[in-house]
Amino acid sequence: MLNVAIIGASGYTGVELARILCNHPEARLSLVTSRQYAGQPLSQVFPNLRGKVDLLCENPPLDELYQRADLFFAAVPHKTAMDLVPLLRRAGKKVIDLSADFRIRDVAVYEKWYQPHSSAQYLQEAVYGLPELYRSAIAAGSLIANPGCYPTSIVLGLAPLLQAGAIVPETIIADSKSGTSGAGRSAQVASLYCEVADGFRAYKVGGTHRHTPEIEQEISRLCGREIQITFTPHLLPLSRGILSTVYAQLQPGFSAATIQRLYEEMYAQEPFVRVLPSGSLPATQYVRGSNFCDIAFTLDERTGRIVILSAIDNIVKGAAGQAVQNMNIMCGFAEESGLEMAPCFP
Amino acid sequence: MLNVAIIGASGYTGVELARILCNHPEARLSLVTSRQYAGQPLSQVFPNLRGKVDLLCENPPLDELYQRADLFFAAVPHKTAMDLVPLLRRAGKKVIDLSADFRIRDVAVYEKWYQPHSSAQYLQEAVYGLPELYRSAIAAGSLIANPGCYPTSIVLGLAPLLQAGAIVPETIIADSKSGTSGAGRSAQVASLYCEVADGFRAYKVGGTHRHTPEIEQEISRLCGREIQITFTPHLLPLSRGILSTVYAQLQPGFSAATIQRLYEEMYAQEPFVRVLPSGSLPATQYVRGSNFCDIAFTLDERTGRIVILSAIDNIVKGAAGQAVQNMNIMCGFAEESGLEMAPCFP
Amino acid sequence: MLNVAIIGASGYTGVELARILCNHPEARLSLVTSRQYAGQPLSQVFPNLRGKVDLLCENPPLDELYQRADLFFAAVPHKTAMDLVPLLRRAGKKVIDLSADFRIRDVAVYEKWYQPHSSAQYLQEAVYGLPELYRSAIAAGSLIANPGCYPTSIVLGLAPLLQAGAIVPETIIADSKSGTSGAGRSAQVASLYCEVADGFRAYKVGGTHRHTPEIEQEISRLCGREIQITFTPHLLPLSRGILSTVYAQLQPGFSAATIQRLYEEMYAQEPFVRVLPSGSLPATQYVRGSNFCDIAFTLDERTGRIVILSAIDNIVKGAAGQAVQNMNIMCGFAEESGLEMAPCFP
Amino acid sequence: MLNVAIIGASGYTGVELARILCNHPEARLSLVTSRQYAGQPLSQVFPNLRGKVDLLCENPPLDELYQRADLFFAAVPHKTAMDLVPLLRRAGKKVIDLSADFRIRDVAVYEKWYQPHSSAQYLQEAVYGLPELYRSAIAAGSLIANPGCYPTSIVLGLAPLLQAGAIVPETIIADSKSGTSGAGRSAQVASLYCEVADGFRAYKVGGTHRHTPEIEQEISRLCGREIQITFTPHLLPLSRGILSTVYAQLQPGFSAATIQRLYEEMYAQEPFVRVLPSGSLPATQYVRGSNFCDIAFTLDERTGRIVILSAIDNIVKGAAGQAVQNMNIMCGFAEESGLEMAPCFP
Repeated sequence: MLNVAIIGASGYTGVELARILCNHPEARLSLVTSRQYAGQPLSQVFPNLRGKVDLLCENPPLDELYQRADLFFAAVPHKTAMDLVPLLRRAGKKVIDLSADFRIRDVAVYEKWYQPHSSAQYLQEAVYGLPELYRSAIAAGSLIANPGCYPTSIVLGLAPLLQAGAIVPETIIADSKSGTSGAGRSAQVASLYCEVADGFRAYKVGGTHRHTPEIEQEISRLCGREIQITFTPHLLPLSRGILSTVYAQLQPGFSAATIQRLYEEMYAQEPFVRVLPSGSLPATQYVRGSNFCDIAFTLDERTGRIVILSAIDNIVKGAAGQAVQNMNIMCGFAEESGLEMAPCFP
Repeated sequence: MLNVAIIGASGYTGVELARILCNHPEARLSLVTSRQYAGQPLSQVFPNLRGKVDLLCENPPLDELYQRADLFFAAVPHKTAMDLVPLLRRAGKKVIDLSADFRIRDVAVYEKWYQPHSSAQYLQEAVYGLPELYRSAIAAGSLIANPGCYPTSIVLGLAPLLQAGAIVPETIIADSKSGTSGAGRSAQVASLYCEVADGFRAYKVGGTHRHTPEIEQEISRLCGREIQITFTPHLLPLSRGILSTVYAQLQPGFSAATIQRLYEEMYAQEPFVRVLPSGSLPATQYVRGSNFCDIAFTLDERTGRIVILSAIDNIVKGAAGQAVQNMNIMCGFAEESGLEMAPCFP
Repeated sequence: MLNVAIIGASGYTGVELARILCNHPEARLSLVTSRQYAGQPLSQVFPNLRGKVDLLCENPPLDELYQRADLFFAAVPHKTAMDLVPLLRRAGKKVIDLSADFRIRDVAVYEKWYQPHSSAQYLQEAVYGLPELYRSAIAAGSLIANPGCYPTSIVLGLAPLLQAGAIVPETIIADSKSGTSGAGRSAQVASLYCEVADGFRAYKVGGTHRHTPEIEQEISRLCGREIQITFTPHLLPLSRGILSTVYAQLQPGFSAATIQRLYEEMYAQEPFVRVLPSGSLPATQYVRGSNFCDIAFTLDERTGRIVILSAIDNIVKGAAGQAVQNMNIMCGFAEESGLEMAPCFP
Repeated sequence: MLNVAIIGASGYTGVELARILCNHPEARLSLVTSRQYAGQPLSQVFPNLRGKVDLLCENPPLDELYQRADLFFAAVPHKTAMDLVPLLRRAGKKVIDLSADFRIRDVAVYEKWYQPHSSAQYLQEAVYGLPELYRSAIAAGSLIANPGCYPTSIVLGLAPLLQAGAIVPETIIADSKSGTSGAGRSAQVASLYCEVADGFRAYKVGGTHRHTPEIEQEISRLCGREIQITFTPHLLPLSRGILSTVYAQLQPGFSAATIQRLYEEMYAQEPFVRVLPSGSLPATQYVRGSNFCDIAFTLDERTGRIVILSAIDNIVKGAAGQAVQNMNIMCGFAEESGLEMAPCFP
């Protein structure tokens, strides 16, 4: 059994990691940390875990922390992560970092969108943890930068098209809608039930959301040149789920049948990407609680555009589930271990 | 007092018309019809109306129907409306039709998207009931084609830009999200609570939704040439509200300040359009239950696009409220009569 | 026009008072206060009010505050209210206090459930603002203790039965379910969207909720002897609405028809109580946004119990709407002024 | 591998059975039936199952049906079930019936609340499938009457008290609140999103809900005498979850500590009942998607009553999950097989 730790277990990503790991056949949760709830059972903070996880939240000193597990999930905010990771890596521990700190390969870009980077020397070692694009690097890696939720949904939706040169990448517009768990578990008025329920809004419009450079990095890599996109995130009145509606101008010569084949071929062996048959459309409720990404597309013949739809559960494939998938790949476990759960509908 | 009738009072548009009209200072509800509920009090079908509306649902023969009011709101499905309207018009009655039957001026376009039109001779007389664009024609009109909900939100969001030539209309993409009341009150599995709640999806993707030609008709008119757009509707897990996120390439020379001024000037005297100050974004919860349309925009400097956001309550400004606004204009009442209610938040 | 002020306008009760008052024909909002948002337009804090209320939030010194209006709605937490009210009363101002501070007539009871009372001398002057029971005292009063939301729903549901001696009051059990706006607008984890949505729970079980003594005070008064009840509040995943399900042992000799008559007689002239016909049951969605209280009952013949169901919108009849109703009564306005809005369904 | 069939797979219980069984280590889904969707993949009816269940819905003739599996889950409405079960039993097949048809041991009671019983001869053989009370009979049984959702939550909450004589059973009042999936997947106006969302109501008040005799049967058995209770079901605006709030008069001599011990002792070995520590209360969101029943209680010292709170997921422990638990017991599998999933929060 692999001993694994969750650093920062009291957020929604933390509880989801615990929910998945408590049934994992090869991993054993050996440590959960939380500054705020240290000393309390994690199952008191999150009563859904009662009877499934019997650890106390701890806040061990750093020189003890790294000894408590073989692999660490860092579910702490960016900035905190970059201070923690070097310590764990120097001790030779495997790390899956769910923050943004090691996702952007170009430190100048990171520092433009976030803040100064204190551990830039680890950027080169970090592998962007999107298994569908980087499986072999993940398998060989020790520091995984687990992708953001929006980028996961958008990049998986675009990758087959970009690899095949089927669209004009400069025309990409990604209109994404996320559940409220993406806003985290901190106490703020904007996340109160009464502010979110029964309502809908956009936020960080006009290319200002920090997932923008992450999306562009992956799209640019797939295109072989620098691409900028328009990305608009929205807040849905539901807890879990992202649907991205992505628009682009189609290149001539690509029929619906050809494009369907591009998707099916690229994702044929993927355990967690479901390419829908023509005529079906994804919905967040059909991936809820699971690690699936459902993808479909429609051609708008009248305007020559393609509309790609991609649905994930933002705290599973968009965070904790993908992190466990990465652990499985890194550690040579079956890739679906602990992630077999079918989506929960209704 | 003007006697008004609601034909088809048992849908969500019907109940909303009744909710608004029961407090209208100049209009008196004299007839509500429903085939299904004939003989029952409307307040039994919709108990929210108890004590506010004491009419029975009726299903009078056509030769009686037209005598029962001075002005008729037709809240019946398309096709049914086109069979009803001629009768009412021949009797000299004012009609506000909330179906699609008289919105499309070109009968060939109508028949391509809907079905054969049995009353095409009334198309010329019909006025498209968007007061912000057609107020004087509405005032002079007798048959109003009340706009669709999606077109209302999108056209109001685009009109100042199109009039000023500030965007490239061929690049328009409208990504709209609607509450479930837009799907109507008919008993179908897809509208069940458990199918919709806690989920999100697109539908009729790729230019297939019937509001597409209606939107394009109005955009084309504003541009002075035929325009086709990409329009994607989505289904929100909430009852009331539409948010449209509209994208277009900006023409050179239009700054954010200039565009803000375009909006403010066009809508300065409009009682129901609220142009938000720079930095604010609309949300459906801030227009809920009211006839307001809230509009804001952001420039995506990196890609040269403008992102317009427009929020309405789909059954008020997107249906019943706009219909009452049109009645007020037609009848010379104060335009805000019966529509003074502030949005209901939370 | 009466000048009215809202002290503490940045909570959900505050915004609802503003929503109602902005259309009131006899009252003019002259001051809205908020410590946190002082200097900001109220319509920026609550964008639903844009175009309807154009006041800035202020935080005037106490010696200025009382001069700014003729009547004050105190929408501040208990304890704060008791410090504020004497100042306003000494200046001869009418006060409607929405906190608990002047609801409990017996200061010892108040101090047992809350904290020491600094203004107990005003308790005698205070009128419990439930118009259906105390209309004439309210009309003559200057300090109104606006009832709690749970007590409003429960006491209105029980009053006709208690007055007629139709039930055994010692057997009363009130199982109440409230929307989340009742928890207020303060930033706390327990009120976050993701903690409340798609879930349901009880809280303060076993007679520990502070509305218990308030309910018992009114029930005891109606019975003419001290009564204790079991009261269990629950948290609903919706913003607005309380449904109370109240149980009691029926006294012999009371048939369903008799009891129906008791309700109809007591509430025959009440503008805001709707006694449902036999066979109908209330639902919170049918009172949403309105000042109505809907009441029905069913006899459980098998066990000899009566089950009373009572629905209100907790921030209207349970708070702001009832406060405006009280203002109307105090000031000799038509009792329904500003409160004519029909419930908003769906 | 045991071959299992779901008869009636197109309802919410059917899809949940499929969700659980697709990961079961000892059972293999060999048949799913649906009259309405025959010929379609089940994963097209319920796209959450895509990639997890690859069966077509079938509607085989009865003389073929029984040959297609070793164990049958009958997820059809009552009345249909009683016609189907004899066929399966005569073929020697194990049956777990999720309808009400074999739950009521006294055929006269069944026929009073439902309709004439065509297979009353099987009532004696049927075992009421509540493992916490009937585990050994289930293990020996061939026909399991899977309990109703409300009875599961109420009976588990009351059993330790009734066995110990700690309460006066004639005073039991069960106020239960259920998610909308309990209303099934049939297309009816009352279950539409817009009718249910953002609202709350009671239904079948006054001892008229058909779960009443089932609850009373089990309570009476535990008491050793005929008991009648007051039971009120309510409809929650959420998909999954039941919370029952149960009231009863406490017998003298039972302290909170004693009662806590009664619960902990009775359920000490139960894999799916979580007795909460004193001071904690259950919530439906903490059992969502799992087979757990969470139970807590509070004494209302002032009135001498006990308030018991019991939470389940109505389509797991209240239906499909309990059915799989029964299968595990009948077939000698580990009782938690396929049911290990931790509740999904948020």
